[in-house]
Amino acid sequence: MTSTRPSGRANDQLRAVSIERHYTRHAEGSVLVSFGDTKVLCTASIEERVPPWLRGKGEGWVTAEYGMLPRATTDRTQREAARGGQGGRTMEIQRLIGRSLRACVDRAALGERVITLDCDVIQADGGTRTAAITGAYVALVDAVATLTKRNAIKRNPILGAIAAVSVGVYNGVPVLDLDYAEDSNCDTDMNVVMNDGGGFIEVQGTAEGHAFRRDEMDALLDLATKGIAELVAAQRAALEDAP
Amino acid sequence: MTSTRPSGRANDQLRAVSIERHYTRHAEGSVLVSFGDTKVLCTASIEERVPPWLRGKGEGWVTAEYGMLPRATTDRTQREAARGGQGGRTMEIQRLIGRSLRACVDRAALGERVITLDCDVIQADGGTRTAAITGAYVALVDAVATLTKRNAIKRNPILGAIAAVSVGVYNGVPVLDLDYAEDSNCDTDMNVVMNDGGGFIEVQGTAEGHAFRRDEMDALLDLATKGIAELVAAQRAALEDAP
Amino acid sequence: MTSTRPSGRANDQLRAVSIERHYTRHAEGSVLVSFGDTKVLCTASIEERVPPWLRGKGEGWVTAEYGMLPRATTDRTQREAARGGQGGRTMEIQRLIGRSLRACVDRAALGERVITLDCDVIQADGGTRTAAITGAYVALVDAVATLTKRNAIKRNPILGAIAAVSVGVYNGVPVLDLDYAEDSNCDTDMNVVMNDGGGFIEVQGTAEGHAFRRDEMDALLDLATKGIAELVAAQRAALEDAP
Amino acid sequence: MTSTRPSGRANDQLRAVSIERHYTRHAEGSVLVSFGDTKVLCTASIEERVPPWLRGKGEGWVTAEYGMLPRATTDRTQREAARGGQGGRTMEIQRLIGRSLRACVDRAALGERVITLDCDVIQADGGTRTAAITGAYVALVDAVATLTKRNAIKRNPILGAIAAVSVGVYNGVPVLDLDYAEDSNCDTDMNVVMNDGGGFIEVQGTAEGHAFRRDEMDALLDLATKGIAELVAAQRAALEDAP
Amino acid sequence: MTSTRPSGRANDQLRAVSIERHYTRHAEGSVLVSFGDTKVLCTASIEERVPPWLRGKGEGWVTAEYGMLPRATTDRTQREAARGGQGGRTMEIQRLIGRSLRACVDRAALGERVITLDCDVIQADGGTRTAAITGAYVALVDAVATLTKRNAIKRNPILGAIAAVSVGVYNGVPVLDLDYAEDSNCDTDMNVVMNDGGGFIEVQGTAEGHAFRRDEMDALLDLATKGIAELVAAQRAALEDAP
Amino acid sequence: MTSTRPSGRANDQLRAVSIERHYTRHAEGSVLVSFGDTKVLCTASIEERVPPWLRGKGEGWVTAEYGMLPRATTDRTQREAARGGQGGRTMEIQRLIGRSLRACVDRAALGERVITLDCDVIQADGGTRTAAITGAYVALVDAVATLTKRNAIKRNPILGAIAAVSVGVYNGVPVLDLDYAEDSNCDTDMNVVMNDGGGFIEVQGTAEGHAFRRDEMDALLDLATKGIAELVAAQRAALEDAP
Repeated sequence: MTSTRPSGRANDQLRAVSIERHYTRHAEGSVLVSFGDTKVLCTASIEERVPPWLRGKGEGWVTAEYGMLPRATTDRTQREAARGGQGGRTMEIQRLIGRSLRACVDRAALGERVITLDCDVIQADGGTRTAAITGAYVALVDAVATLTKRNAIKRNPILGAIAAVSVGVYNGVPVLDLDYAEDSNCDTDMNVVMNDGGGFIEVQGTAEGHAFRRDEMDALLDLATKGIAELVAAQRAALEDAP
Repeated sequence: MTSTRPSGRANDQLRAVSIERHYTRHAEGSVLVSFGDTKVLCTASIEERVPPWLRGKGEGWVTAEYGMLPRATTDRTQREAARGGQGGRTMEIQRLIGRSLRACVDRAALGERVITLDCDVIQADGGTRTAAITGAYVALVDAVATLTKRNAIKRNPILGAIAAVSVGVYNGVPVLDLDYAEDSNCDTDMNVVMNDGGGFIEVQGTAEGHAFRRDEMDALLDLATKGIAELVAAQRAALEDAP
Repeated sequence: MTSTRPSGRANDQLRAVSIERHYTRHAEGSVLVSFGDTKVLCTASIEERVPPWLRGKGEGWVTAEYGMLPRATTDRTQREAARGGQGGRTMEIQRLIGRSLRACVDRAALGERVITLDCDVIQADGGTRTAAITGAYVALVDAVATLTKRNAIKRNPILGAIAAVSVGVYNGVPVLDLDYAEDSNCDTDMNVVMNDGGGFIEVQGTAEGHAFRRDEMDALLDLATKGIAELVAAQRAALEDAP
Repeated sequence: MTSTRPSGRANDQLRAVSIERHYTRHAEGSVLVSFGDTKVLCTASIEERVPPWLRGKGEGWVTAEYGMLPRATTDRTQREAARGGQGGRTMEIQRLIGRSLRACVDRAALGERVITLDCDVIQADGGTRTAAITGAYVALVDAVATLTKRNAIKRNPILGAIAAVSVGVYNGVPVLDLDYAEDSNCDTDMNVVMNDGGGFIEVQGTAEGHAFRRDEMDALLDLATKGIAELVAAQRAALEDAP
Repeated sequence: MTSTRPSGRANDQLRAVSIERHYTRHAEGSVLVSFGDTKVLCTASIEERVPPWLRGKGEGWVTAEYGMLPRATTDRTQREAARGGQGGRTMEIQRLIGRSLRACVDRAALGERVITLDCDVIQADGGTRTAAITGAYVALVDAVATLTKRNAIKRNPILGAIAAVSVGVYNGVPVLDLDYAEDSNCDTDMNVVMNDGGGFIEVQGTAEGHAFRRDEMDALLDLATKGIAELVAAQRAALEDAP
Repeated sequence: MTSTRPSGRANDQLRAVSIERHYTRHAEGSVLVSFGDTKVLCTASIEERVPPWLRGKGEGWVTAEYGMLPRATTDRTQREAARGGQGGRTMEIQRLIGRSLRACVDRAALGERVITLDCDVIQADGGTRTAAITGAYVALVDAVATLTKRNAIKRNPILGAIAAVSVGVYNGVPVLDLDYAEDSNCDTDMNVVMNDGGGFIEVQGTAEGHAFRRDEMDALLDLATKGIAELVAAQRAALEDAP
């Protein structure tokens, strides 16, 4: 059976995934993640402070910020710093990344420190937020490893792996890991974040065209489950390389 | 069997819903919607202009803005206008309301005009965004009726009803329409927007505590489907009253 | 003699005044005040802190913020939070409300805490600032009562009642309590804030058309004195109801 | 009888007033006005444009902006440009100046152009807004004269002179033209703007300490009337000098 | 040989320089500096605090802010406070002034306090930043003298004089101290800051038209050296006057 | 003779330079430039519009924006978009980059279009602005080549090459191309922009410690001239590769 996807991929096929650790040298974790032509630099930065509302509680915090280089996109996008602030889309995405990664962290084990996950899109071709979450997890693990090495923590605060993928109904057919050509023309778009135990962390589905039926939702959740299992395997393979 | 919910409600029971039309007099549509102690004023304003990117395309636009009065909440929340801008949560919610309501509008039938849905929370007790969507639909219908009355449109641009409800896993049990006491202590929180044909418009689920399983997700979607059918009935009853 | 006012009111006649306490449930004081079709929700919020410049001085502070729901007005007004800040008119009004209410408070008796009076216009038909001041006084008294109940204060910090009304020269005739139809066409517009002892707290008069003469000013001040006596009586009646 | 004022002035005595025209060379009108140690540079700038809401109406506009050099004050005040915007006090003052000067201009005679009155306080010792209004009038007349010279207008758009002064109750006694030592300790502070026909343009009175009685208000208005007649004479004298 | 400069000045001739101390009365140092028609008010304000990053280090700080009155320029420039913040040019200039003046201060001898140099352009005709630096030095010396008088410092923190001048290639000829007519038409514009020992503090040269050659640069540096020696002499003369 | 530089480089030795074209795929020009560990992504974006002040003049514009990823630096730097705007350092650098690149462009030959050079620092180790200018030139040439290919321009608007390097006095010795270890400890730091004809475009020298003498300046300019010749050769080599 021939594919109906612009890329020629099978309906349940991820794009080529690559996870390159130690991409830059200053950050405690630094990962360039690629989902096909989507490339996101994810850095994890440790700071020995906590936000005001956590002072003296013996817990840490994990937060995320998201940005796009102005020419990561087909047409140039105005720089948010020049526009005077982050837009609604950016805030929504970075809140999603932060919540997703906090779901895999034991904040008491982390101790009174903050890890900031900066996800900056170098090149965009759809799925930047799911690539960001998938890459940020690896950067987070690397950052935590530096804490272990300097005996700053007593037990591993990482509760399990987190990865994310988009699914959608494109031309009436449920497909996995939408690229930009599909994303801008699909009926339904859903971002799914799961852990390595198959549990759901976040599900964000939007009917772009017609409303989606319960059976379509079921098919999309199945695709996401398959894709995330493969992404978790790719994360594990990347982390098994020598540090 | 006794309820384990703080309010004593059954697990699949909505709070008392009221939809009061013509709450203020200037707006083309003006609805005070209450989900229990959550009260949101939803106004629909028609403006005879289109955003720049729609000029000359023969289509209209539907957008939403969301706000909270400073003392709608248990503790006073700082006024966003005084803080210098809308925060991430506000932007996320108003983007959700706008997308949801656009899903029930034929924008070509609406013609080159904008309808803005302002959803201002007078009192908050959980579920403000779902109440806002449910009330904004009724305000939208009233605003469209004024267009019909002045022969400004040729056919009804409303494609069907839209309503929203939250569901969640509270103390391990799936429940419908979380109030604040539940919302701030639940494991999973999901906002679901559906149309009156039972199709999904938006699904936004977040694991606050542990990740949720596929069977929990199924139970939550069943609860949402039931609740939204009741909300659609309440909308219909409100709209059947004399204008 | 027939009235020349659009509303048919006598020249020295207030609009129907209503003062509804406990309008929302979270605030220590919550009043919906109506001057005819002008409706303002006034909440009083107690916070156990003082601004930096009052730290350690044993005194409290009373401040006010003012807002308008976007569709309180005939045409939709852009939301100040979306515009990125409060405009000059808003700042001017909230500074006036704050100064006016501080004039009736013994700040040493209040103790080191802040009471914020949020005045949000639900529906506008002229005179929103005077309605706000009149309603905020009642909300303030209710908030102070909660302090008395929990023995947080030793003596009553309320020095007397404060109310406000607008007066103006409309079609050459001095009139009391301008509604929007009058306000937008009058020659002179004056907002007067007084206490229940007949003393002036604030007088803000502006010649919109021609400059006003001393005898017109005298007539306006007489009207204001009469109107405020009636408003103070309405406040007293509202406060005499069971809490 | 000896004065009780810090400056030794009589109760109805203005500070030394000086009005220096052509203080800087680029502006169409440029006046340094001094009320004692209060010095304000008032420039009037003509621009051949109108604000959007006046396009095609054949009328002009007069507006004002107000600023303070950071060290015009006893202690350094933070620069508003560095703080990110104009504060409430600044907006209130510049709105007052603009309204006051518009009261003496026939905007149809001015034609489709804007005159901006920039009032920048070089040194502050109380009464900056009244000095600004008094000086801005002279700058405005000079700017209009340049329009006359180049035959840009057919008839004089200036309807009459405008001046302003503060009055207040200091130590229980009504006094004219408060300096900083009085302003920061007075019970009542009132800014009065009048025209050269003795008509009131703006009256803004505030009880800083106790509420003021009607007889005090009468005395204050008498003082203001006397002071403004002297200021109008000083304006006239300054304008009679060769251009 | 006749001059080719619009002003008729010789190529190595400064404009008339005047330095007027004690121009306003609140600031610890207050200087009106004129380079021809360019007039800048420079005030030095002492505050007994240090920025957070210097706390407890026993050192002080010197910083600068720069502004232009809206009508200092030929056409009115929008007020930065009204635009919502300082622009790039302003920030660049005030950073330059701050760095330049810090170069002549022993910050340990200054002690834990901040001196802020506010440079506000009253009238602009080219060279506002070099006039500002030259005047700010004198204001700084006067401010330090007040510290000496009240025995707040043990040794003089001023290491030597600092002055600045612009040089440029105008019509192919290197000239000293560009006025606006030259500045807006020159090929190369260079601002030079030097100390009284002939050492360079800052050199900022820009080729506006064609790139400049090494021999042109040498000629410009010679001119600047000459001009700054004269400016340092003018500073010294001004400071020798009775305080 | 042994080097005294932290890196062991000779005093007149550049760091390893690499210029990688076509680094990302959407931009008309996209270059990753490395000066040792300093890595900057420079993209050139063509837009078929001109700024308002150039409309109808038959000329184009070249502008630049500069940013730093939050963890390009040793410690995490706050994201400017999150802080609400670009800081003074950023504005100063992007103004320098824009001016420098405009110096090599015939804006009439470019035609009515804008080329924006976005320079985003991926990793910082000193000299980010000089690397940015050097890389942006190559991106600009690539962007112009796309215009040539589609016959959008008649003649080559590139007038010659532009490159930049820093020089400074480190431990009393003039050195070329400062890295971060040198930059943060040097006495004098100078950024020099030159064209391939040996002409100066920009010279920005700052005495960080003691003022620098004329002979030091001469030595620094010699070093810069040597370094820029090598950088221009590296640019040429990179551009000679197949497109």
